[in-house]
Amino acid sequence: MDNTSIIHIKDTNPARTRLVADWQTLMRTFIRPESDTGRPALIKYMEQILFGLHDFLKTHVGITEEISLKELADRFTDTRISDHPEKKLEHVIADLIQGIAPHAVNVASPFFVGHMTSAIPYFMVHLKTIVTALNQNVVKIETSKLVSIVEKQVLAKIHRLIFNSDDAFYREHVQNAETTLGCFVEDGTLANYTALWVARNQLLKPKGDFAGVERSGVGAALRTYGIDRCVILATRFGHFSLNKAAGLLGIGNENIVTVDTDARGRMDPGALDRTIRILQESGKSTRVMAVVGIAGTTETGAVDPLDRMADICRKNGIHFHVDAAWGGPTLMSEKYRDLLDGIAQADSVTIDGHKQFYMPMTCGMVFFKDPSALDAVAYYARYVNRPGSVDLGIKSISGSREANSLVLHSALKIMGSKGYALLIEHGIETAEAFAQEISKRSLFELVTPPTLNILTYRLCPPKLREKLQGGDAKEARRTARTINEINIALQRLQREAGKSFVSRTTLGGTDSLGEDRVVLRCVIMNPMTTLDTLKAVLDEQEALYRSYLV
Amino acid sequence: MDNTSIIHIKDTNPARTRLVADWQTLMRTFIRPESDTGRPALIKYMEQILFGLHDFLKTHVGITEEISLKELADRFTDTRISDHPEKKLEHVIADLIQGIAPHAVNVASPFFVGHMTSAIPYFMVHLKTIVTALNQNVVKIETSKLVSIVEKQVLAKIHRLIFNSDDAFYREHVQNAETTLGCFVEDGTLANYTALWVARNQLLKPKGDFAGVERSGVGAALRTYGIDRCVILATRFGHFSLNKAAGLLGIGNENIVTVDTDARGRMDPGALDRTIRILQESGKSTRVMAVVGIAGTTETGAVDPLDRMADICRKNGIHFHVDAAWGGPTLMSEKYRDLLDGIAQADSVTIDGHKQFYMPMTCGMVFFKDPSALDAVAYYARYVNRPGSVDLGIKSISGSREANSLVLHSALKIMGSKGYALLIEHGIETAEAFAQEISKRSLFELVTPPTLNILTYRLCPPKLREKLQGGDAKEARRTARTINEINIALQRLQREAGKSFVSRTTLGGTDSLGEDRVVLRCVIMNPMTTLDTLKAVLDEQEALYRSYLV
Repeated sequence: MDNTSIIHIKDTNPARTRLVADWQTLMRTFIRPESDTGRPALIKYMEQILFGLHDFLKTHVGITEEISLKELADRFTDTRISDHPEKKLEHVIADLIQGIAPHAVNVASPFFVGHMTSAIPYFMVHLKTIVTALNQNVVKIETSKLVSIVEKQVLAKIHRLIFNSDDAFYREHVQNAETTLGCFVEDGTLANYTALWVARNQLLKPKGDFAGVERSGVGAALRTYGIDRCVILATRFGHFSLNKAAGLLGIGNENIVTVDTDARGRMDPGALDRTIRILQESGKSTRVMAVVGIAGTTETGAVDPLDRMADICRKNGIHFHVDAAWGGPTLMSEKYRDLLDGIAQADSVTIDGHKQFYMPMTCGMVFFKDPSALDAVAYYARYVNRPGSVDLGIKSISGSREANSLVLHSALKIMGSKGYALLIEHGIETAEAFAQEISKRSLFELVTPPTLNILTYRLCPPKLREKLQGGDAKEARRTARTINEINIALQRLQREAGKSFVSRTTLGGTDSLGEDRVVLRCVIMNPMTTLDTLKAVLDEQEALYRSYLV
Repeated sequence: MDNTSIIHIKDTNPARTRLVADWQTLMRTFIRPESDTGRPALIKYMEQILFGLHDFLKTHVGITEEISLKELADRFTDTRISDHPEKKLEHVIADLIQGIAPHAVNVASPFFVGHMTSAIPYFMVHLKTIVTALNQNVVKIETSKLVSIVEKQVLAKIHRLIFNSDDAFYREHVQNAETTLGCFVEDGTLANYTALWVARNQLLKPKGDFAGVERSGVGAALRTYGIDRCVILATRFGHFSLNKAAGLLGIGNENIVTVDTDARGRMDPGALDRTIRILQESGKSTRVMAVVGIAGTTETGAVDPLDRMADICRKNGIHFHVDAAWGGPTLMSEKYRDLLDGIAQADSVTIDGHKQFYMPMTCGMVFFKDPSALDAVAYYARYVNRPGSVDLGIKSISGSREANSLVLHSALKIMGSKGYALLIEHGIETAEAFAQEISKRSLFELVTPPTLNILTYRLCPPKLREKLQGGDAKEARRTARTINEINIALQRLQREAGKSFVSRTTLGGTDSLGEDRVVLRCVIMNPMTTLDTLKAVLDEQEALYRSYLV
């Protein structure tokens, strides 16, 4: 049974039951049709994809159609692969466009301001299509050749954007088979893993008879170094991939030590200094493996004081990793690049391509100041990735890998850093204007003003605000919980109405009572999102509140 | 300076120096051109991509043009991102097609039989383009909605192909938000990491005051359980991602214990049994974390005796992981699925989509027999992936993730399992015929006959073969080395000639002298690769040998 077609379209293929797997037909899918009839058909499908989807993205300005997850899930329960072909390409494409897309999420809508996913320039689709059609595997030169070389160049360009070393440095390393300035990975999570993997291996390196943690494991490493545990320091706004990294790497996620922040959610350098001292004085049983600075926290967009953190790390000989998955591309804006001051002193940096480089899902990158750092995680095999080869898979957390570097290579040529800067500046300045608008409206409260292009706020009616600030602690606490419930309901109502989407998160213990605060979260990255868009989002929230929540 | 255009094309854009980053132009790349002139242009670009590349793939039947890596590398040394746009989309596409593609590797050629990368059906390009244009992020339902539901269905279909549980099981789990039948990952390497991550966490689980290895780390876990180390058992033909996994997970890659094989490179179940017993008797200081069976070794395509290994693992309560990255889709062939007997008894299974599902780079998958197994690596965050949600990112090694599941979902409908079976059977049967051809030619020696569609052989002139078998051990050893050198040179000469490509690897200690043997390796997966193609590969090798190596 074909579930997809139930949703929207009639069965456009009455001959389906006669489809059979057949060698000649199959071969034609490998040898593309060259006939006068075949070629236009392939183009027609691509036109359907480019413009069929585009029309959907234009028509459904809302987030998705109104249909519950449960209803959708009930339609996708057939778990048998059919023996014979069920459909031809054109019907499968029609199903995807008419059956799936309308129930996917329209992340390209200017009203979709809840997550770090947005519209991408249309040319990104063309570029990714080229990557797909070439089907190179950059794990090794034998399945990529020039594409691996292009990748090394792109890595050097982004490395230079971050670390800004001199010409001689880049001349030496850009195409050096022995050294590596960074690595493309699936996403920011894998970039963070890679950085902390390197930090772990550099800290627990070979020593005497001990062959190093990578070879002998964390247990043997701790015994050799006479310590109980390694810790990673970050604020509580660190991305949850840091916890996953500590778990995965055998360090244990309880060994992420939280450093206090200032009122804006940025790491307090004094607290970092004190935390390191306390840990060092704990009878040598604990070693600090890395300090993580965040350049754009996921929840509020706050940027840690990277320069002061870098100083403290250097003084103490600690690996300094900067998670700039979100904020990294801000370096292309001459106007705002100062926000990331100190990033050039990091030992490693994470940046996501599918975030503010506006690439399609997904592309992460990790960079190392020291072009030999990735040697700490080098692996070889007998049939590929032999020592001395240019094979990019030697120092990479993944194995097979698509050539997303070609997309970034091309996008940098089409956009220029000034093109990207325009997008980034639009986001920051629109977020700033939005913050002012929120502050002007009595029903709302700005919770975290934007540093970059992310802010949080909440609906907090004046009457409840008074109660919150009144003398009765018990009453205030109850009110705090009520406000949280209102915001949870509000976000859900707006999402379900399907016209616009903000996300929500919970900022732990941030109010004067030490209670968690539920906040609405906006990420302004779509250039089509203007202050008017955001005013409409607030108007809708006010209307929803008045209709359903008072 | 624009390096790309130097290679092949004249500067097609004399106005380049006048390109400037401009907000209105930029906005047009987000709002796709709707004018009568704009729309055809976008289609024209796509036509260029589909057929420009196709023409390249047809013209260059060889692997790549003759140009050295060094020469290419010298052209990609500019490490500055240009301030202003350098090129328009049409020129960037022209550069990619005329400047990059001819120096990439034509993995689609029938003469490219050296690696697990080959031609893909053309519709895969269309399907991936849809995924790109939709730009969903399946880490959470809020950026994917129906697409996450489709992904759960596809996972159930492949789970059923492997484990073949009953209808009630799949009814319960296919759309169950609490359970997970598997996970899409970047590639087989990450699939293996995930499987062994789960195995580690299940073995070193919480106990009394100990919160489990994920929470407290490998050091605390070993202390709690009173052991020195955990080990993973596999043959020496295990993929190098197993070593990486042991390193990454803090187990230590020296704790991959090698189990002996039979003459065909398959794990010897008796040796497995003995190895486990010896480890168990080693004063309880070692615990076996997992046994890994391989269903299609990367080097020779051998399949371990999965059923007997499963019995041994069950008897000893050990996690049994099957790395079927390569061989998994063989299950769709009724004729050859018996080769994987026992896979249904595995605890976890790796399968790659970009290998024998003929998907574009890259798509890995990992499956678990127990739908709760992935709970051992569950992570939550405050702004997404909250407990109880359908968010697929809760139990996933990566974070942001593109919706490759839509490609497989659609491909299964277009191909049917019988369509895939035709491809798989063609590979196995062509490899068998190729093996016979090699055996017929006196200049060659078949080293590992194919089980699936991979074989290894070498050029071994009769005169040298005699010396090898002669009485003088020293002479034989020198001859063995000479034969290795001949094969290394032969593979390089053929690769550099650019007409066809086989890979090479070194099978350790496999000859009667215990010397390493360098072998040529062929992977037959392209349906356009016929016995005639392979005869031509051998003819060329004979000619190269006679011209350069005698």
